[in-house]
Amino acid sequence: LPGKYEELCQRLAEYSNLGAAAGLLHWDQQTYMPSGGGPARARQLATLTRIAHETLTSPETGGLLEAAEREREGEPEGSVAWATLRMARRDYEQATRFPADYVSELARVRSEAQEVWARARAANDYASFAPWLERIVELSRRAADYLGYADEPYDALLDQYEPGLVTAELKATFTALRSALLPLLKAVLARRTEVDDSVLYQPYAVDAQRAFGESVIRDLGYEFERGRQDEAVHPFTTSFSIHDVRITTRFNPNWLSPALFGTLHEAGHAMYEQGIARELEGTILASGASLGVHESQSRLWENVVGRSRPFWHHYFPKLRQAFPEQLARIDEEGFYRAVNKVSPSLIRVEADELTYNLHIMVRFELELALLAGDLAVGDAPGAWADKMEEYLEVRPSDDTEGVLQDVHWSMGVIGYFPTYSIGNLLSAQLYAKAVADHPTIPEQTARGQFGQLLGWMRENVHRFGRTYFPRELVEQATGQPVGGQSYLDYLRAKYSEIYDLG
Amino acid sequence: LPGKYEELCQRLAEYSNLGAAAGLLHWDQQTYMPSGGGPARARQLATLTRIAHETLTSPETGGLLEAAEREREGEPEGSVAWATLRMARRDYEQATRFPADYVSELARVRSEAQEVWARARAANDYASFAPWLERIVELSRRAADYLGYADEPYDALLDQYEPGLVTAELKATFTALRSALLPLLKAVLARRTEVDDSVLYQPYAVDAQRAFGESVIRDLGYEFERGRQDEAVHPFTTSFSIHDVRITTRFNPNWLSPALFGTLHEAGHAMYEQGIARELEGTILASGASLGVHESQSRLWENVVGRSRPFWHHYFPKLRQAFPEQLARIDEEGFYRAVNKVSPSLIRVEADELTYNLHIMVRFELELALLAGDLAVGDAPGAWADKMEEYLEVRPSDDTEGVLQDVHWSMGVIGYFPTYSIGNLLSAQLYAKAVADHPTIPEQTARGQFGQLLGWMRENVHRFGRTYFPRELVEQATGQPVGGQSYLDYLRAKYSEIYDLG
Repeated sequence: LPGKYEELCQRLAEYSNLGAAAGLLHWDQQTYMPSGGGPARARQLATLTRIAHETLTSPETGGLLEAAEREREGEPEGSVAWATLRMARRDYEQATRFPADYVSELARVRSEAQEVWARARAANDYASFAPWLERIVELSRRAADYLGYADEPYDALLDQYEPGLVTAELKATFTALRSALLPLLKAVLARRTEVDDSVLYQPYAVDAQRAFGESVIRDLGYEFERGRQDEAVHPFTTSFSIHDVRITTRFNPNWLSPALFGTLHEAGHAMYEQGIARELEGTILASGASLGVHESQSRLWENVVGRSRPFWHHYFPKLRQAFPEQLARIDEEGFYRAVNKVSPSLIRVEADELTYNLHIMVRFELELALLAGDLAVGDAPGAWADKMEEYLEVRPSDDTEGVLQDVHWSMGVIGYFPTYSIGNLLSAQLYAKAVADHPTIPEQTARGQFGQLLGWMRENVHRFGRTYFPRELVEQATGQPVGGQSYLDYLRAKYSEIYDLG
Repeated sequence: LPGKYEELCQRLAEYSNLGAAAGLLHWDQQTYMPSGGGPARARQLATLTRIAHETLTSPETGGLLEAAEREREGEPEGSVAWATLRMARRDYEQATRFPADYVSELARVRSEAQEVWARARAANDYASFAPWLERIVELSRRAADYLGYADEPYDALLDQYEPGLVTAELKATFTALRSALLPLLKAVLARRTEVDDSVLYQPYAVDAQRAFGESVIRDLGYEFERGRQDEAVHPFTTSFSIHDVRITTRFNPNWLSPALFGTLHEAGHAMYEQGIARELEGTILASGASLGVHESQSRLWENVVGRSRPFWHHYFPKLRQAFPEQLARIDEEGFYRAVNKVSPSLIRVEADELTYNLHIMVRFELELALLAGDLAVGDAPGAWADKMEEYLEVRPSDDTEGVLQDVHWSMGVIGYFPTYSIGNLLSAQLYAKAVADHPTIPEQTARGQFGQLLGWMRENVHRFGRTYFPRELVEQATGQPVGGQSYLDYLRAKYSEIYDLG
């Protein structure tokens, strides 16, 4: 007879299977679904989501979990059983804390608010979205109350996306980062004429872009036998198994960067999922440790590797073979500088490495103030514009390129943006440790060899899946707490040299 | 408060949503899934199938069904409520008659037997498959007992796929058909040199094949806003909503027929699903009336229209534009004859219209004898070969091209093959009535206009979905019972003329 733990695992596997099925329905909706299929797809997803939620939160699951915890008390730390029980307890507690009427209200508001937001952004009409943001802030306050927190409500929201991260710590990290970034940015901007990136804005045939991108990520270690690439308007990575991890890309026929770096970014997410230990397949541990850790892997390959000089030493000649006309009048060094041009802009998703985190800080500070009631929803556009001017010296001329630019809030998601910055910090912190362990990694990169770097990430990050919380994982991997020092060192070295800051 | 009927509909909608989700997982598996994804996909499908089965067969569903039947007694015949209750009762009764251990045994045997069959077919090793066929025959006998039947066990199996069709009637239909087909075939074969189809076996670029096929089915009335075409090794049509009905095709770069007629065939299935009345969307009535009625629509467009002289009068010039070199030395008439060449062969899926049903009769007679115990599983290869020789004057040289050629039996499916012939008969019967109502349909076809024919099918067949049983539907549509006379008239007229039988 199977024990209670095995029964629990069976139940959690069904929960995972339902999630994977819903994931495929989402993937199809973003890639291949004909336009007529939308309404039926929404109903299908609602059914799967409801059944998955019931599977996780049913009293039977609660009883099984308790029984399994008793049965398997004292399992060794780091073992599959130990981690499964710990994460199942966390998931069960989080999911059962929300009353059913809250869950359905949130789903309804999310669904409607996204449509209102899309129209509001298109029409530059913040006023029509404001009542919905009001409701979302209110629902987020209630979420924090349901979830509970030690110091402040925002802690509860953060913890949903980045387990263990607390607001006070994040504030301190951001303050330190900003006080170093702003002078660095000022110095760079004083020399902004040094870099010309016009080479990136030319006609680039989509088929050749796709072929080049796929050849690069194959070199990096993305396995197409266990994945594939398709096109989607809003690129994403999705996983239905550690042996079926798919990426999506959007091609711009007149701008090389989005698909090129987007492909590296999504491949970074995907290699994380493909690198999870096979023994975790089918368990609730077969995913990333957190959004921040996940983003560390996408940023690693997109930026730390993919915008590095050794990387372009190897790939520039190949890219020029693919696009001989477009790249006829530029050399390796010029191209390297072009893909690293710093240019404060209004739009987060187009930001360079130096300014990206300042965009996040604007959102973080507004979220904190909205949640605390220190900022009225009606005043958010002005607060946004002021913060942008303060940090980035640019000011949106309307709300479409300001407070309305991101979908997240309309999705009912507050406390999510900081994970992007955590990912940036961790990408440099993990890379620094990998290079400390294997100092020839940059030289290997210059030869198009990525096995040792990927191997280090697999050994120290990927294989664990969700066995550990991010804090535990990072300390084990790097011997240091999560911090911004490596990232600052990285940015300083890179941009001082490109912009000759001496 | 919603009534019991509305509650039942809500429950059946969830059942349909789970089925649609499973359908998408299957579609993806056959089209885009990377090779590594198989094992996880099987687990995901098992979860969805189990939950869907439980949703349909739970005591709550049974109670709701009874209460809804009481609540809605006397609903007018043909109304959505009347049909929903009638079909829900049928589905519920069928699904609940099988004990749980039978269902899981059948699933296990199916899954293993398919793998054994695939190896056996590849190795021409019937002996290794025989024990599995033995089990499948035994499971089919049990299925008939669980389902119940009036005259003979095969009735119960047939009824699963073609509701209302009984064995005695099918025997009579087949006997009459065969006694007319065999002399016709003999006469054609005496003149077999009259037709040369070598033009079809040349290199045909796949992209041009795809473009031509898509342009034709767009003309026919297949709506790409509510569907799409992808490639699959074993082509099929699948529907996730009446607004999302997808077809698949397999291209042979050196043979024009499979993709060309396969696309018409699948589009026929798909236009049926796209033509279901919008008010049936999301109900259990939003599918075809039976496999036979479904096949009538695929065969109508593939054969009755797609291999007709008026059709090629319109399309041959267009096809020659797409393939000028390949078709340089043939004219419209020669091409029309090429796509209608009669050639008795060993393989069902390659059979022409005249011999196709003889392949089905071989299978039907073997199934009857196996089920009755009149034929031992070990003797099936010989019986198969003898029947093929008797009906088609060809004899398989091994079991791979004989008794092992079809996947169906290994899937645990006995009683399914006859629906292919029912589809052939109905394709001609429905077309004859449409032309009787609108005598200019052939002339319209010769101008590439299909709206009146499709409109007739929509009005008399498609819109009803699964509101009626096939017998009711066909009698309403044609004023006649299901029969073979139209089909025989059609074949006689067509082949007498092509082969100049006088």
